[in-house]
Amino acid sequence: MSVFLPKGTRDFLPEEMNRRLAVVETIRAAFHRFGFEPLETPAIERIETLTGKYGDETDKLMFRIHKRGRNVTPGECDLALRYDLTVPLARVLAMHGELRMPFKRYQIQPVWRAERPQKGRFREFFQCDVDIAGATSSMADAECVAVADAALQDLGFSEYTIAINDRRILGCFARRAGATDLQGELRVLIALDKLDKIGRDKVIEEIAGRGFDPAGLDALWRAVDGASGSRDALLNALDADLDEAGRAGVQTLREVIDLAISMGVASDRIRFAPSLARGADYYTGPVFEVAVDEPKVGSVAGGGRYDNLVESLSGRAVPAVGVSLGLERLLVVMEELGMLPARRTSAEVLVTVFNAETRWDAAQAATDLRRHGIAAELYVGDSSLKGQLKHANKRGYPWVVIVGPDEAAKNVITLRDTRSWASETLPAADAADRIRAAIGSVDLDPPAR
Amino acid sequence: MSVFLPKGTRDFLPEEMNRRLAVVETIRAAFHRFGFEPLETPAIERIETLTGKYGDETDKLMFRIHKRGRNVTPGECDLALRYDLTVPLARVLAMHGELRMPFKRYQIQPVWRAERPQKGRFREFFQCDVDIAGATSSMADAECVAVADAALQDLGFSEYTIAINDRRILGCFARRAGATDLQGELRVLIALDKLDKIGRDKVIEEIAGRGFDPAGLDALWRAVDGASGSRDALLNALDADLDEAGRAGVQTLREVIDLAISMGVASDRIRFAPSLARGADYYTGPVFEVAVDEPKVGSVAGGGRYDNLVESLSGRAVPAVGVSLGLERLLVVMEELGMLPARRTSAEVLVTVFNAETRWDAAQAATDLRRHGIAAELYVGDSSLKGQLKHANKRGYPWVVIVGPDEAAKNVITLRDTRSWASETLPAADAADRIRAAIGSVDLDPPAR
Repeated sequence: MSVFLPKGTRDFLPEEMNRRLAVVETIRAAFHRFGFEPLETPAIERIETLTGKYGDETDKLMFRIHKRGRNVTPGECDLALRYDLTVPLARVLAMHGELRMPFKRYQIQPVWRAERPQKGRFREFFQCDVDIAGATSSMADAECVAVADAALQDLGFSEYTIAINDRRILGCFARRAGATDLQGELRVLIALDKLDKIGRDKVIEEIAGRGFDPAGLDALWRAVDGASGSRDALLNALDADLDEAGRAGVQTLREVIDLAISMGVASDRIRFAPSLARGADYYTGPVFEVAVDEPKVGSVAGGGRYDNLVESLSGRAVPAVGVSLGLERLLVVMEELGMLPARRTSAEVLVTVFNAETRWDAAQAATDLRRHGIAAELYVGDSSLKGQLKHANKRGYPWVVIVGPDEAAKNVITLRDTRSWASETLPAADAADRIRAAIGSVDLDPPAR
Repeated sequence: MSVFLPKGTRDFLPEEMNRRLAVVETIRAAFHRFGFEPLETPAIERIETLTGKYGDETDKLMFRIHKRGRNVTPGECDLALRYDLTVPLARVLAMHGELRMPFKRYQIQPVWRAERPQKGRFREFFQCDVDIAGATSSMADAECVAVADAALQDLGFSEYTIAINDRRILGCFARRAGATDLQGELRVLIALDKLDKIGRDKVIEEIAGRGFDPAGLDALWRAVDGASGSRDALLNALDADLDEAGRAGVQTLREVIDLAISMGVASDRIRFAPSLARGADYYTGPVFEVAVDEPKVGSVAGGGRYDNLVESLSGRAVPAVGVSLGLERLLVVMEELGMLPARRTSAEVLVTVFNAETRWDAAQAATDLRRHGIAAELYVGDSSLKGQLKHANKRGYPWVVIVGPDEAAKNVITLRDTRSWASETLPAADAADRIRAAIGSVDLDPPAR
């Protein structure tokens, strides 16, 4: 048997899986609290659904599935693995006219991209997307900002910033630099998007090299330089300097920011970032990105409004705004910041088996604990009690339950602490309460390996 | 855009998705309570990992992924979608020698099979598998029976039967019918497996047609005819009639049954089913199957011991026993029996927006409710209040919150019942408690569409 994984994929063994489940459940609970409803779509889509949506380069990164059956031309592919969660959403909106608008959905599923694997970049990875379809109100944009903020809060993040901008503000500057159509605007934006990486001089050089007039961006640089000052003052100053479309962007941003604050986002987290463009071509209004202060790993969440995308994909005009949380990156940051629970197992106690004659008693003890809501592993291997204690220690259980012949005869159990080796004997009926009380007071960090 | 789904796949829209999530969480909680640890593996595996494991016919049912990059021969496939959760488990066991035995893992993930789609049979469907690797003890078999039983209990099932047998008992009869090796035994078993479908006469005919002596099965038929009597009496009667291997099977069954009962399985649910074979070739000991009494849809869970499979796949000798719950079939049964929650939305209340000026107040009200743990949808569309009440009704919300200018001025909210239209006005600070109390007492069935 081939014992290799496909390049860029991972097994999630229990210790890591428990962490992933905890993080996903926290994110899901935040989405749910905001009234977003779950959606799942198949991993496989018809190839025509996916190709031509992301650009030629991206089409090459899809995992294509070979056609099955007889008389198939070798190389003929009819399906592909989903590349993101946005095109499947557009397909769902196109297929299901009965969905009531506004449609607030969340979707937490893996996507597949045949990119060159790198540290923190995988070929199968999870996206946690929230989108509101069928709403043009700034409230929808604000809710996407607020739900991302709430999820991060729930995960325990405190030091992070939400950068926000509006594509229409950037569009105004791009037109001043000589862009005459959307394609031209996007070419200026692509250069601007590199600001953090290559610096202002290089961006100006690139814009000039593409035949645009960098002087059109002067007011943008003034805004960027003033961006650490008062957000409102900056928006007001910029407002006076923009064309009508740009001013609409400023007005929307003001609303989105104020509404997000009324939805619980701390005002000082929200930073107006006048040069923020975000990569994707399809944004039409507010765009936003969440970055943690330390460690610097790029954004952990981002999104924006894309009022034309669904129509271009599906022919059905549906304005939309959404935000995507990057599960893999969140986990990397939480790991580095020590925010992940250190428990090695999800069960709380190991019920040992003293000998073959007391198997029934051990089974009964485990069953009693489970009935009382304690997650109990019943030992089913063939080690001695000593070996079982070692097993419990390696697995990181704080406790073992021992039901030897003496205990069985007296209808008691012995509870042993796997680190201090302290033990106490108590009536079997009290075991669950005792363990539950102890779990509340114990330091659940496992012992060193 | 192509607005079709691949054949045999489904979108799970929110109403259905909420049900699936509830069922999966219940199953997961039962697995967790029994001390099983979560595992997830990639959807894609190397093609050599999967092929040759299930037989030639099955290999044709795999979704193969075309190789990417330049200089690829058309038709060259290097990956395939996972076909079940057992081969990936075997690969994990082969790759991760550090996993401590016994390794109790659960895995709830989709699998893909290019079978002809039928009612209730899909090309992408979920399996909920529990396996214990590295344990030969009957306690492991009993735990697999008990955890399936516990999951069904937690889901609300009450009328179901657990049929159990041991392959070694069947092996004894097959040898008596003239089978001289494992392949021969399996040929007899394949015929026996059809008993429910084609009846005893046809089975006997088929066994004779394959060159075996049906008279060797006489004692089996006596056992089948007596199977409605006392389980213990039947096992005792059969015991006297078997060879050594068969008697080992009876002895194991006695232990598994007694242990399962001590793990909480009701004794009268467990039926000794002397002709139960289960399809797969790889079982070596106890096999079991759970079927609900009504509706008749075949088994909803099944499993058994397979002590040689992992070695044959991975070269590492690891005894194992497992059980698989069929999520799709469980959902079909629960739907038919009316066991699924009827709520259409997962959010509990709609916070309406009276007019543009009170958007901030509505946002604030929704945020307060969410902070108090109420899942609140904030309306972000552009309908009038009347339209929003209709939206709430269609979506099945029992309540709407109204924060008009009057309410905002007085710092109160109005709570309206979407069916009775009764309303009450109360301090904003009391809203969460009032809704929580009301949710506890309300019939959550949605109104007729």
